[in-house]
Amino acid sequence: MLRFAVDAMGGDNAPACVVDGVIEALREKENRFEILLIGQEEQVQPLLDRQDIGNLNLRFIHAPEVITMHDVPAIAVKTKQESSLVSGLKLCKAGKADAFVSAGNTGAQMAASLFVLGRLPGVMRPTIAAYFPRLQDGLTNVVDVGANVDCKPEHLVQFAEMLTIYQRDAAGIEKPLTGLLNIGEEENKGPEFLKQAHAMLRDADRNGKINFIGNIEGNDILLAKANIVVCDGLVGNTMLKFGESIPSFLASIFKPSIQKLVASGKLDHQAAEVASDVFMQMFQPFDVEKFGGVPFLGVNGISIVGHGRSSARAIKNMISMAEHMIENKVNQHIAEALTDE
Amino acid sequence: MLRFAVDAMGGDNAPACVVDGVIEALREKENRFEILLIGQEEQVQPLLDRQDIGNLNLRFIHAPEVITMHDVPAIAVKTKQESSLVSGLKLCKAGKADAFVSAGNTGAQMAASLFVLGRLPGVMRPTIAAYFPRLQDGLTNVVDVGANVDCKPEHLVQFAEMLTIYQRDAAGIEKPLTGLLNIGEEENKGPEFLKQAHAMLRDADRNGKINFIGNIEGNDILLAKANIVVCDGLVGNTMLKFGESIPSFLASIFKPSIQKLVASGKLDHQAAEVASDVFMQMFQPFDVEKFGGVPFLGVNGISIVGHGRSSARAIKNMISMAEHMIENKVNQHIAEALTDE
Repeated sequence: MLRFAVDAMGGDNAPACVVDGVIEALREKENRFEILLIGQEEQVQPLLDRQDIGNLNLRFIHAPEVITMHDVPAIAVKTKQESSLVSGLKLCKAGKADAFVSAGNTGAQMAASLFVLGRLPGVMRPTIAAYFPRLQDGLTNVVDVGANVDCKPEHLVQFAEMLTIYQRDAAGIEKPLTGLLNIGEEENKGPEFLKQAHAMLRDADRNGKINFIGNIEGNDILLAKANIVVCDGLVGNTMLKFGESIPSFLASIFKPSIQKLVASGKLDHQAAEVASDVFMQMFQPFDVEKFGGVPFLGVNGISIVGHGRSSARAIKNMISMAEHMIENKVNQHIAEALTDE
Repeated sequence: MLRFAVDAMGGDNAPACVVDGVIEALREKENRFEILLIGQEEQVQPLLDRQDIGNLNLRFIHAPEVITMHDVPAIAVKTKQESSLVSGLKLCKAGKADAFVSAGNTGAQMAASLFVLGRLPGVMRPTIAAYFPRLQDGLTNVVDVGANVDCKPEHLVQFAEMLTIYQRDAAGIEKPLTGLLNIGEEENKGPEFLKQAHAMLRDADRNGKINFIGNIEGNDILLAKANIVVCDGLVGNTMLKFGESIPSFLASIFKPSIQKLVASGKLDHQAAEVASDVFMQMFQPFDVEKFGGVPFLGVNGISIVGHGRSSARAIKNMISMAEHMIENKVNQHIAEALTDE
């Protein structure tokens, strides 16, 4: 039976939403795996006591320390060895858990995952991707989104290879398409490291490791031209944060406009509500909670990183993702692909 | 009297909208400058003939060749010396025009501007900025947006200095704030070249050349934390194109939703129209036509680059921008600031 270590203390809504998420996951999947919930007893136990969970495969493990969003990753990982985050990853390392799930401090989780689990054979730099909105079926992952800056061409190629395996094996996308994010479509465009990456991605395509469609530009992402958009972490991180800021920017224009129209009698209350609903629905493709989180790919183990705003549903879906990755041997396939070069 | 060379052939709606734009500009400003409109006689003359322009300071100059959007910039500039673009810049170089305005092939205009006009004293790399939406008063310019990749720290510092002078002298922003776009706020974050740029921007601030507020992240741009957002052209270009793709992406969700609600009787036609108007207004801050275009800063002359989609209004506003830059001695101030280091 698979066993998942879950960080009860990670995320803006922790521990309450994590407790709810793991309970939902166990009920929905009818106890087919075990959850090791890790956190501060005084915070978590009262929440568990309130629930009727005697029949669930849920075990609580006390961890006295907490790594917060404000902790500096590298320091926190060293000084807070008794935190839920570090403890959970150590359970994975010791073979007592099959995966670790957290919606806490992303930087700390990356640092601790790398430090505790190490890298898979052949992997130069583990990486983290993000989901971008699309209207079409399938997935758009931008990679890297901040784990790696100063990337070399060979790093970008490995990101593409790892994401291809992840999307194919864990997300069921038969032939994920990879695009290289650049300032123009022509292969001789852009900075030197991208020209080199372009040539190396062509080779990886020829060797059957990826499906490379060439350079793509910023406006091609939402058009879903590629499933995997490869870039340096500086570009990916900037675009991710810029994109995340758009819904609230637009809401701050839309909402007062609607209110003004209602006040002036140009729109009745009911129509205003309908229009506001349509506005909210418009951002449905921006909802990444259906995925729950992203795996930190390339580490020797499974470490799923959630958004700080994660809800119970997101936590539940992160557990499903971990299950998929294990069942479909994503890490084994990454190691095979990346040692064979 | 100032004299502006305007490329009649540049832009998706050329030459018609360029003809309309220059006529509007001359009428609105009551002939206080002269326009040299350059283009293919067979295309432009019939449009001019239809207008009552005998009293305007408008002179037409025939240029047999046209550089299109599909031309490769470096090649086009060499092989199409008789194009409206190259001819217009040559008029500036010869002192027969005070500025050049075009909404054509941006890459070709940059290459030709650099080639024909040369650089201002002290400028390492001329640059191009873009306007980003903001709700607050003032301006947000992201720089560079594709003219320069593989930027060195000193290039980023010069971009900040040039934009500071431009915003202060031509746009009337008393104290433009500069932010360095990075993956985190802390000065030790991000790639090596940005850590160095951070230190050098601090120095420039201490010397009174810019007002540096430190690192900013992707989500700070729409919040208008900075007036000038400095980054490598790869990052700026990607973000600009990504941002430009958002309105139509959202429209392709919003419009069918509204139509479905009308069809199902949940929204009446009038309310649907009002809601659609609000939707369109939401993108008002994305409208950069009010600026018309951006100057290619750092060249020894004034070359204003417009969006391919430019309307007559955009052309008119580009002419105003050229006027402002000359009156307020932007180039002279840039040369003074950048030779004094």
